[in-house]
Amino acid sequence: MKAFMDGDFLLDTYTAKKLYHEHAERMPIIDYHCHLPAREIYEDKKFRNLAEAWLGAGDRYGDHYKWRALRARGYEEESISGPDDEYKKFYQFAESMPYFVGNPLYHWSHLEMRRYFGINEIINAENAPRIWEKANKVLETLTAREMMYKFNVKTVCTTDDPADSLEWHQKMNRDSTLKVKVRPAFRPDKAINVEMSWFADWVKQLSSVVGKPINSLNDLCNALAERIKFFDEMGSKLADHGLDAVHYAPASYGEANAVFQKGMNGEEISDSEQDKYKGYLLLFLAREYAKFGWVQQYHIGALRNNSKNMMSKIGPDTGFDGIDDKIYMQKLSALLDDIDADGGLPKTILYCLNPRDNYALTVLAGCFQKEGVKGRVQVGTAWWFLDQLDGMKQNMETLMQVGLIAQSVGMLTDSRSFLAYPRHEYYRRLLCKLLGDLVENGQYPEEELPRLGKIVEDICYNNAAEYFDF
Amino acid sequence: MKAFMDGDFLLDTYTAKKLYHEHAERMPIIDYHCHLPAREIYEDKKFRNLAEAWLGAGDRYGDHYKWRALRARGYEEESISGPDDEYKKFYQFAESMPYFVGNPLYHWSHLEMRRYFGINEIINAENAPRIWEKANKVLETLTAREMMYKFNVKTVCTTDDPADSLEWHQKMNRDSTLKVKVRPAFRPDKAINVEMSWFADWVKQLSSVVGKPINSLNDLCNALAERIKFFDEMGSKLADHGLDAVHYAPASYGEANAVFQKGMNGEEISDSEQDKYKGYLLLFLAREYAKFGWVQQYHIGALRNNSKNMMSKIGPDTGFDGIDDKIYMQKLSALLDDIDADGGLPKTILYCLNPRDNYALTVLAGCFQKEGVKGRVQVGTAWWFLDQLDGMKQNMETLMQVGLIAQSVGMLTDSRSFLAYPRHEYYRRLLCKLLGDLVENGQYPEEELPRLGKIVEDICYNNAAEYFDF
Amino acid sequence: MKAFMDGDFLLDTYTAKKLYHEHAERMPIIDYHCHLPAREIYEDKKFRNLAEAWLGAGDRYGDHYKWRALRARGYEEESISGPDDEYKKFYQFAESMPYFVGNPLYHWSHLEMRRYFGINEIINAENAPRIWEKANKVLETLTAREMMYKFNVKTVCTTDDPADSLEWHQKMNRDSTLKVKVRPAFRPDKAINVEMSWFADWVKQLSSVVGKPINSLNDLCNALAERIKFFDEMGSKLADHGLDAVHYAPASYGEANAVFQKGMNGEEISDSEQDKYKGYLLLFLAREYAKFGWVQQYHIGALRNNSKNMMSKIGPDTGFDGIDDKIYMQKLSALLDDIDADGGLPKTILYCLNPRDNYALTVLAGCFQKEGVKGRVQVGTAWWFLDQLDGMKQNMETLMQVGLIAQSVGMLTDSRSFLAYPRHEYYRRLLCKLLGDLVENGQYPEEELPRLGKIVEDICYNNAAEYFDF
Repeated sequence: MKAFMDGDFLLDTYTAKKLYHEHAERMPIIDYHCHLPAREIYEDKKFRNLAEAWLGAGDRYGDHYKWRALRARGYEEESISGPDDEYKKFYQFAESMPYFVGNPLYHWSHLEMRRYFGINEIINAENAPRIWEKANKVLETLTAREMMYKFNVKTVCTTDDPADSLEWHQKMNRDSTLKVKVRPAFRPDKAINVEMSWFADWVKQLSSVVGKPINSLNDLCNALAERIKFFDEMGSKLADHGLDAVHYAPASYGEANAVFQKGMNGEEISDSEQDKYKGYLLLFLAREYAKFGWVQQYHIGALRNNSKNMMSKIGPDTGFDGIDDKIYMQKLSALLDDIDADGGLPKTILYCLNPRDNYALTVLAGCFQKEGVKGRVQVGTAWWFLDQLDGMKQNMETLMQVGLIAQSVGMLTDSRSFLAYPRHEYYRRLLCKLLGDLVENGQYPEEELPRLGKIVEDICYNNAAEYFDF
Repeated sequence: MKAFMDGDFLLDTYTAKKLYHEHAERMPIIDYHCHLPAREIYEDKKFRNLAEAWLGAGDRYGDHYKWRALRARGYEEESISGPDDEYKKFYQFAESMPYFVGNPLYHWSHLEMRRYFGINEIINAENAPRIWEKANKVLETLTAREMMYKFNVKTVCTTDDPADSLEWHQKMNRDSTLKVKVRPAFRPDKAINVEMSWFADWVKQLSSVVGKPINSLNDLCNALAERIKFFDEMGSKLADHGLDAVHYAPASYGEANAVFQKGMNGEEISDSEQDKYKGYLLLFLAREYAKFGWVQQYHIGALRNNSKNMMSKIGPDTGFDGIDDKIYMQKLSALLDDIDADGGLPKTILYCLNPRDNYALTVLAGCFQKEGVKGRVQVGTAWWFLDQLDGMKQNMETLMQVGLIAQSVGMLTDSRSFLAYPRHEYYRRLLCKLLGDLVENGQYPEEELPRLGKIVEDICYNNAAEYFDF
Repeated sequence: MKAFMDGDFLLDTYTAKKLYHEHAERMPIIDYHCHLPAREIYEDKKFRNLAEAWLGAGDRYGDHYKWRALRARGYEEESISGPDDEYKKFYQFAESMPYFVGNPLYHWSHLEMRRYFGINEIINAENAPRIWEKANKVLETLTAREMMYKFNVKTVCTTDDPADSLEWHQKMNRDSTLKVKVRPAFRPDKAINVEMSWFADWVKQLSSVVGKPINSLNDLCNALAERIKFFDEMGSKLADHGLDAVHYAPASYGEANAVFQKGMNGEEISDSEQDKYKGYLLLFLAREYAKFGWVQQYHIGALRNNSKNMMSKIGPDTGFDGIDDKIYMQKLSALLDDIDADGGLPKTILYCLNPRDNYALTVLAGCFQKEGVKGRVQVGTAWWFLDQLDGMKQNMETLMQVGLIAQSVGMLTDSRSFLAYPRHEYYRRLLCKLLGDLVENGQYPEEELPRLGKIVEDICYNNAAEYFDF
């Protein structure tokens, strides 16, 4: 029986241990996609206690994974997302822990206690009071920046709206005390989602940011191009799209602009109209990204806001999203292909929230490679609900079998929490386990172990540094 | 090499053995969804020989799993579902057994021989005569009720049409000699399937049962409400829907009633009309169930009656159904969400026949939890074709990673056969193996083993007892 | 730690080794579906060096698997598919090998070096010069036929257009020095794909081959029937269809012929028109195949020619195909069912390129069995991108759980290369590992080992010989 989560957690062979301890463990972290608030990094946020740092309250701090698990346990929403007593919130989470058997929360939570707080106790009702006390003591000095330093985080990319002033990024760019490079990332979902009720309002907001009227799709494109240039000046190297569904159909400017006008007027927009407008804009944006050598990311397949009840009570992004089962491979192929008509498809990372599409997506990525770039189009690591042992294993296995895992840019947290960095460790341990198994099972030669060690280091850090040009 | 199917079958670690033998093994069985005929339980059916009990003939006794395997072997239909010589039927099944390597039939059949009949021999052509003789001897006293007692079955829920008189359930409710609680379950598929040729006939049948005319959808709703009340009085605690495809669209009463009228007239009914009628009725029924605190089950994704040839020869439910690959996540989400508009979604168990949807379905269930209920909406165990080691492992793994397996209401047989109870054992062994692996691999602490043992007992029995309020 | 790819590669238990070395290893090969060029077999092609034999150039020799991996590495297309220096081509492949960790190319390439060339060295940059020299030496005598003899290949089925003269097959039928039986296989995709720009041209070509005008769908059917008879005389025993999408709707002759006429006129053809035309023709062809006792194969789910750029540069079938995510189960069911209306569905093998459909497809196959045939309809081995350890394991696992793996007709290469035969070994080793595990884990009795050995031999060779009537 292996000891519970000791130094060799998830590492069950000689080779896995060697790969992890001699290679993976000592690499810094590039967290190239997350939702950390720039302001809190700049201001070096201090947390009043473990409940705030760990479980949060309100939209900002909410750890959806933990909230969902607590809801399934049947606790009152008041004591989950509401302004309830903070020790109570912590206690009911600790009390629930044994019932999270097999769930990544069980491992993440223990890693978090161990790595940030030096608390090695099993989390449960009995140990809750002691953990609370110890952790709060540690939080007196463990600020947001210290949390990042503890994990040797070199670069972080936040996720930012085109209309964002990047005020905090500008300040951080001038802050010589900050030991992490914080870059903005361009997320123009609000420009894409023409069917939403807030579309016209958002366009007005963008218009006021650029100081020019936006009366046509051309005006919008020009404004976005201007913001891309600004983001680039502020250090951005990548864009990100939440494409819940993949909309794409070739469209003339006139067709796409007609949909834009309907959007500005708040008229109903059909699926095929969305295909044209969104396709047109995605093409335009991809070519702009390419001009700056940026990477674009497509996050595909979320089914959001499933509960109207909870939406009206506590708003979006609070743990009521799901996984869609739509069909999209042909449209995605046509979109990438049309962007690449002139060879100009930028580096692209594809993520899908439904693991049933791992194989099709990874094979599709292999159809859009380019001379001089390692893995121009590649499938990213297991996203969101899939960011756990089974999901990451399926993702890695597929990358190995029909892609080249050696070229993967590796892990990211996608998190709103400063306490999420152990997920990089989790990923690295599993990676070393799987690669180690190949050697142990006679599927990869021991003689190439030095190269395999280098490959592990590449996946953990070097590939991302090269791919994103950090 | 482990011995073939010994006491530690599927249990390969110390912890797995401990969890099974000290916890799982001693829990009684709640079989909350099956197709056992109430009459045979009441009358304590005696079987004339092993062929009747094990392989069956005609619709009622058919074991589809076995029939399908025999057909794939190329045997004559006459000797599978027909009135052929019964020893011959048994013999060709025994003879085929070695060729079922890797198939759950191989394990189920041996478990059935061992647990019910005390026959430990390998099933094959050589041993067939001896097995036949011994088993038939045992069947002289091994009646339907005795089969249930052997497995410590405490509660069984049959599956019953709203028009059913529940005659046998009423008798069983008064039968003090019966040591199993047999409850009806409400399965109103015939009310839902307005597009079927027999719809109007069935409505007439229901009308005569309630003694009132049914000329409108309102009349139908009232009749169904009356039957739900009656079922509740007879001990029912749950409903069940076979939703092969998920049909849902918001609809006014007028729209839904118009479809009802077309159905009564035998007119063709379009997909979008089905969405409206079925959506309306599913909403109505869910709210009725909620009034009585019932659980509702949705069985999604069957593709039925694939062979017209065999349909015309031996009818439905004889082994010619399949798995559909439809898309349904958005409609299912909207349906659950609209039922829950007033917070009144009843406890709901979702089953899907296509394992590619495990992740999306399990995550969706997590969006509809409720204060005070453990796992209000949850994904059920692997259904039908998936009720085998690989299918159950995928189901359990998904429940662990994105749900809470500790709150699962566990296994059911969904079977027409009194010889299906070893499938609970099969499930429990696999469950203990997987949970045991977590402890053995350092993913769950040995210190929490007492709690884990309790969790195993909960999944085997306590969770169902609490969830269904048995 | 197991030695790298030694005699017990992939075999980790006593039983696995026994099954492989005493049974699988000594069975000849039937490669019932491949794309080897008949002419090269007849002429006993000699290769000028390892680059030509292994990596190829131009459409014919291209190894898409290797090309795709090299593109992902970022090499220039010129040095992949172009007329670049051949040692350079080989060198950059050898140099890349360590980065194919976990990819089947890593194993295939080493198996190829070992089995054909007797070269046991690790393939990498350092060993590249020595391997190049040794392998080229071997190629002086290792001709196309010798490559086949080395692997004890008994029967090979090529893939041939109905308009093909089968000139080389005719010559091989008379060549007593040839120790492999080479059979043509009928692949009428060009007759089916009425929506393609080249449809009318191809019909004209067929017309000139049969020496009769083709002015109607009836004429086309008659011409195809004539070619089926001719193929049968030339030794063909099977047909093959690349059905990227499954098109099917019942159609009258008039409806289908109207679509044919549109195709001949180069008019646009809608999806529902394709359903009718293709459905009609697939029904017709299936019944013709049945007359001759042929097997038909449906290859479902490719998403082809994803890159217009590369299509215009180097044409189709050069490594830019993908996996589709379409829905097709209902149409496929209706197609098989309607063909079988008179019981006349021929033996059929179904392949799907998307592993998410393994379960639904395997269960569907189980609905169309027939008296007197073992596995009339069955799911084939993992196809194309899935022909690797994970893909084959998923395929075998599904066959075991909801089909009968003991009746599988086993492996095929689907390859354009004479160096692809080690993939049969790869498949057999994995098969023996998985079946061996069942015995080792107590899931199949040691007493039945002799039968299990026979089952392994059946899957490797005997089942195919019987099923195809070779």
